[in-house]
Amino acid sequence: MARIAGSSGPRTEEAIRRAGLRLIATHGYAAMSLRQLAAEVGIQQGSLYNYFRNKQEFLFDLIRGHMLDLHAALDAALLAEGSADARLTRFTEFHVAYHVERPQEVFICYSELRSLEPDNLAAVVAMRRDYERKLGDILDHGRATGEFRLADTRMATLAILAMLSGICTWYKPGGRLSTDGLQEIFTGMVLALARGGATETVAVRPRRREALRAGIG
Amino acid sequence: MARIAGSSGPRTEEAIRRAGLRLIATHGYAAMSLRQLAAEVGIQQGSLYNYFRNKQEFLFDLIRGHMLDLHAALDAALLAEGSADARLTRFTEFHVAYHVERPQEVFICYSELRSLEPDNLAAVVAMRRDYERKLGDILDHGRATGEFRLADTRMATLAILAMLSGICTWYKPGGRLSTDGLQEIFTGMVLALARGGATETVAVRPRRREALRAGIG
Repeated sequence: MARIAGSSGPRTEEAIRRAGLRLIATHGYAAMSLRQLAAEVGIQQGSLYNYFRNKQEFLFDLIRGHMLDLHAALDAALLAEGSADARLTRFTEFHVAYHVERPQEVFICYSELRSLEPDNLAAVVAMRRDYERKLGDILDHGRATGEFRLADTRMATLAILAMLSGICTWYKPGGRLSTDGLQEIFTGMVLALARGGATETVAVRPRRREALRAGIG
Repeated sequence: MARIAGSSGPRTEEAIRRAGLRLIATHGYAAMSLRQLAAEVGIQQGSLYNYFRNKQEFLFDLIRGHMLDLHAALDAALLAEGSADARLTRFTEFHVAYHVERPQEVFICYSELRSLEPDNLAAVVAMRRDYERKLGDILDHGRATGEFRLADTRMATLAILAMLSGICTWYKPGGRLSTDGLQEIFTGMVLALARGGATETVAVRPRRREALRAGIG
């Protein structure tokens, strides 16, 4: 959120952001009122307008802010060179670690796209496309070097992102897996997916296998 | 929905279900009023109570009904025997085809779990677990036969379901891919993921590679 006027400062701004995330994640954007938001933060409703002009701008700021932070963090984390394997590993580790700490943002960026006005939606979709393109470039690179065998890198991009962001729907910090453990297991699966097997069909059908076992193959 | 009384019949019931799906998917459960739902269907609000007792029961019926239909359809589609590869292929083809036709149900079953009262949530979570277990059993079977190499079949189950259900967030019927095309590409990726590579790590890390290039490795 870009603060427009007033004097409560960045701490209030952050409190509004957190309360808004919580309220929208719990009840949905349409059901959240600005009166409720102000009460949650403990300020007058009128004071909210020091931070945004209306509820739509607030939602857009929340989502755009998340996307801007995400892009900046990804750009800092990505490998500029190296094998496609190494670059994909780095991407996966980054995406997992970044998103497991922000389940509410992930939920809202998915579930409340419906509530964005057309121009705002277009801006967010463009930022998402840009994020997807950064993964897509790694997959295309790997296909060019022969490291990856993928029938369709665009589908693979969407599949990998859904698989990784899906962690937020079930992961509870403090459970049986640490973030490190998650990163390791998911990197293994993402690499396996990218290295492919897409063109292989089932080599030995069960009947054939049984026949082999029985010595009649 | 189990119809409680009245005489409008299954067509009204189906109209209520469809209108509810559309309203909840568009505005969220908390923002939908039963007045709005009745108006959408073109009946009196009081007539809704021939079909459910309250808004919570309506949401639960929507989600439970979807899960019951899903289980029945899966059980009819699954292979009772065969290689893990063949069984996983069948599961994947089923899951893709079933879900791309029901994007609103998929969205609500994910985004409105938050709105279910504890007992209802517990019932839905149990049905989801049961669905996950059916995929998990195939992965465990494949690991036992040596067809699949997976570090963690529970994580793989959740990864595969997120990857496949994620299709609903971007797939538009009539686009460049048919359902057949989707099934083929996603089956390829799911099989590649399951067949593994999970234990392989990237052999040469970038820094080491740079050192090698500089002749100081």
